[in-house]
Amino acid sequence: MAYPAPSARCLADLAERLGPAGLTTDPADLAPWLTDWRRRLTGAAAALVSPATLEEAAFVVARAAADGIAIVPQGGNSSMVGGATPAGPAEGRALLVSMRRMRAIRSVSAGDNAVVAEAGVVLADLHAAVAGAGRRFPLSLAAKGNATVGGLISTNAGGTQVLRFGPMRSLVLGLEAVWPDGSVLHGLAPLRKDNRGYDLKQLLIGAEGTLGLVTAATLRLVPAIESRAVAWIGLRSAHDALTLLRGLEDRLGEAVESFELVPAEGLALVLRHIPDTRAPLGEAWPWNVLVEAVGDGAVADRLQVALIDAIARGTAGDAAFASSEAQADALWKLRESLSEAEARDGMAAKHDVAVPVAAMPDFMASASQAVVERFPGTRPIAFGHLGDGNVHFNVRAPAGSDDRAWFAAQASAVSSFVHGLATEAGGTMSAEHGIGRFKRGDFVALTDPARMRAMLAIKAALDPAGIMNPGALLPLAEKDEPQ
Amino acid sequence: MAYPAPSARCLADLAERLGPAGLTTDPADLAPWLTDWRRRLTGAAAALVSPATLEEAAFVVARAAADGIAIVPQGGNSSMVGGATPAGPAEGRALLVSMRRMRAIRSVSAGDNAVVAEAGVVLADLHAAVAGAGRRFPLSLAAKGNATVGGLISTNAGGTQVLRFGPMRSLVLGLEAVWPDGSVLHGLAPLRKDNRGYDLKQLLIGAEGTLGLVTAATLRLVPAIESRAVAWIGLRSAHDALTLLRGLEDRLGEAVESFELVPAEGLALVLRHIPDTRAPLGEAWPWNVLVEAVGDGAVADRLQVALIDAIARGTAGDAAFASSEAQADALWKLRESLSEAEARDGMAAKHDVAVPVAAMPDFMASASQAVVERFPGTRPIAFGHLGDGNVHFNVRAPAGSDDRAWFAAQASAVSSFVHGLATEAGGTMSAEHGIGRFKRGDFVALTDPARMRAMLAIKAALDPAGIMNPGALLPLAEKDEPQ
Repeated sequence: MAYPAPSARCLADLAERLGPAGLTTDPADLAPWLTDWRRRLTGAAAALVSPATLEEAAFVVARAAADGIAIVPQGGNSSMVGGATPAGPAEGRALLVSMRRMRAIRSVSAGDNAVVAEAGVVLADLHAAVAGAGRRFPLSLAAKGNATVGGLISTNAGGTQVLRFGPMRSLVLGLEAVWPDGSVLHGLAPLRKDNRGYDLKQLLIGAEGTLGLVTAATLRLVPAIESRAVAWIGLRSAHDALTLLRGLEDRLGEAVESFELVPAEGLALVLRHIPDTRAPLGEAWPWNVLVEAVGDGAVADRLQVALIDAIARGTAGDAAFASSEAQADALWKLRESLSEAEARDGMAAKHDVAVPVAAMPDFMASASQAVVERFPGTRPIAFGHLGDGNVHFNVRAPAGSDDRAWFAAQASAVSSFVHGLATEAGGTMSAEHGIGRFKRGDFVALTDPARMRAMLAIKAALDPAGIMNPGALLPLAEKDEPQ
Repeated sequence: MAYPAPSARCLADLAERLGPAGLTTDPADLAPWLTDWRRRLTGAAAALVSPATLEEAAFVVARAAADGIAIVPQGGNSSMVGGATPAGPAEGRALLVSMRRMRAIRSVSAGDNAVVAEAGVVLADLHAAVAGAGRRFPLSLAAKGNATVGGLISTNAGGTQVLRFGPMRSLVLGLEAVWPDGSVLHGLAPLRKDNRGYDLKQLLIGAEGTLGLVTAATLRLVPAIESRAVAWIGLRSAHDALTLLRGLEDRLGEAVESFELVPAEGLALVLRHIPDTRAPLGEAWPWNVLVEAVGDGAVADRLQVALIDAIARGTAGDAAFASSEAQADALWKLRESLSEAEARDGMAAKHDVAVPVAAMPDFMASASQAVVERFPGTRPIAFGHLGDGNVHFNVRAPAGSDDRAWFAAQASAVSSFVHGLATEAGGTMSAEHGIGRFKRGDFVALTDPARMRAMLAIKAALDPAGIMNPGALLPLAEKDEPQ
């Protein structure tokens, strides 16, 4: 597909409608938004366009559609997979459409347990806004200071509370978006039930901006946390971690909000590289789990009783309970610093895989073994959301090697291998980060033809000119696909 | 669209592949499945085709697709909207594809909280099968003895536990289906997270068989009920009911699984027409609510304390607690017999509307008033899932009138009026029953053009020949639409 650059007339139309804050072609304004979050890819755009209202957003899309100009939507630019970087087939000719000016929280209804937030609202700001109404929005992740509502929806973001509340898809009660022809999907009414045909919002959730531009959403809220209990548990095996999870679910039910797995090596990396951290248990265990349970005042007692019982049965080795919010934060810091600690230690090929929960302990073992056999000396490390069957399965360069040279030479092959292992195990090569631009090649290679055919048919039906986020998610036209 | 009848050769191919149990053209075999659940519509089909396996189902669709023959999928034939009745544009020429022979429960995993059930599994059988594993499938409805998994998915069914667990869409972890070209969507792996592009199963859920044939699903299970508490509460107003709901949610959290509203008139109808029922409270209250809370052994105490407090504050008037399972069942009978009691009393135009939860009390009042003004003498009655913002808003014939004559003359106009009121209020004309054939006209008339355009584009993309369930949900070709 050949994408034209926007004409001077088109840019003038946009400038006139959006005003000075709404359009810029100044390279200095664009620069911060052209490189992806992981600093692996830099693109180029014809202009940075920033609508401030639904009407402006619809105008932008309609105006681009009229000339067949490509649009790359962007929220907080915190994609882990280059999903919002204007690189690829329309590079230099696309409009980079920033949603950051649409940052109103249109309403908060404690009674309806719902908030209406525009696409550009930053997750941390959303948390703060609903806290004032005695509610919380139960999705959080490391990039919460940057990630926006629109991006979280377009990537169906996960995070640390999926175990109880599901991913973003489970939290979207209503959606407002602009279709690729500039018409508007009005769907913000928070209807708990609505069976009028195809649930169109489900298509836009996780579509990575390829089917339309999300402008606002009605999101589910839950009561503010009354009391939380956080514990760090040492275990002998990942199988024991799974047994522990089932036991806690049986005894605490849905109070278990987070169940995060950290291997001994991951904890060691954190203790080595992150200041102000210390080992929570007297002894180093092969595996660790961070548990958070939320409920009434009795939840800490119930968690403690359950964990003491697990130790007595031999399922758990040891456990430390946070006795203050500060201690709870310190335990969480051990988990949340893991990616940073790993990065400080050297480069790694990073993967975000899931398999059915019960299969994860075996998968981690067999995949680690297969990786080491195929790429001798590499050091796989798996950590994260065991309760969701989702771990970040990263493969570090061989010890003592030049990790940058190794990454340049090997990372792509390692990733394709790991993605293949997850797919063969009935799992997914992308659990929560999406496909974006970095994983497109493996996604195209590993996807069942009937499934890909359906996706391409939907894309062609809703965006026949292919203007929405070209280069992300879906295969490129043959001539554009890198060899 | 002109649908051909299946040729003798086509029927022979199907008979050869499916065997004697898989195909019949005997009118006596077909007859029970040609009339809808509400006995309002009778269609005709060229044959009843009953695949027993995924491979047979894929063969049926591919064979039909090859000749452009229409398929009307059917599960338990319990659609409230004529969704599975072979009437309309391909009447007499469609294959009525019954999924009832695909009734295997392929696996139950208590550890993964998941069951893999084929499309033809009857809901009551599913409940029984997972109970053996100490789990429950948290969706139930009056037609549970007939409704099948495939139909529940294709209609995104609701029921009495949506408040806590959501509708069918929230419970589908994986899906297997046949696309309209006969290719297969393999997606049963119960991945809690999977962000590989468009979530295709979401399109098939609630599509009423117009985009493909659901053959099996992986469904979410939850722990078996430890203890349940059921109470019947008398109230002064529907607003008080909403206040009560919020108060119970604050104190009991997600333990509140059902919150069903019954007006005084509804209870009176049940007591008049249903044998072995008696008033649960000494006094008749303008409104009643049936609450069920589920949790540990303390849940009954917590509900009782909360209700006594609500009475003290004046939110609730009186309450009766079930002190045995038999008493709980007796209270539920009052709620579940309401439709039957109403039917015994005379004919009514029935509607299944939803608005945002907080808006429902006012909507019930204003809609009732508008209906009576527009259709003098009619008697609106609203009951049901207040906690979901969804009530069955039915309009009974004027007292003393010939209700059949009234229904024939007025029901259609009343329904269009009520559907319009719900839509104007930002709500939906179909909360849980779907559109099917009965509501298609109002759906087409009341749907925003951008939304309808997107649905038609998706339909054309995935089912270009329009063979899947023609006449249901989507507008007909102009020449076929009744004037």
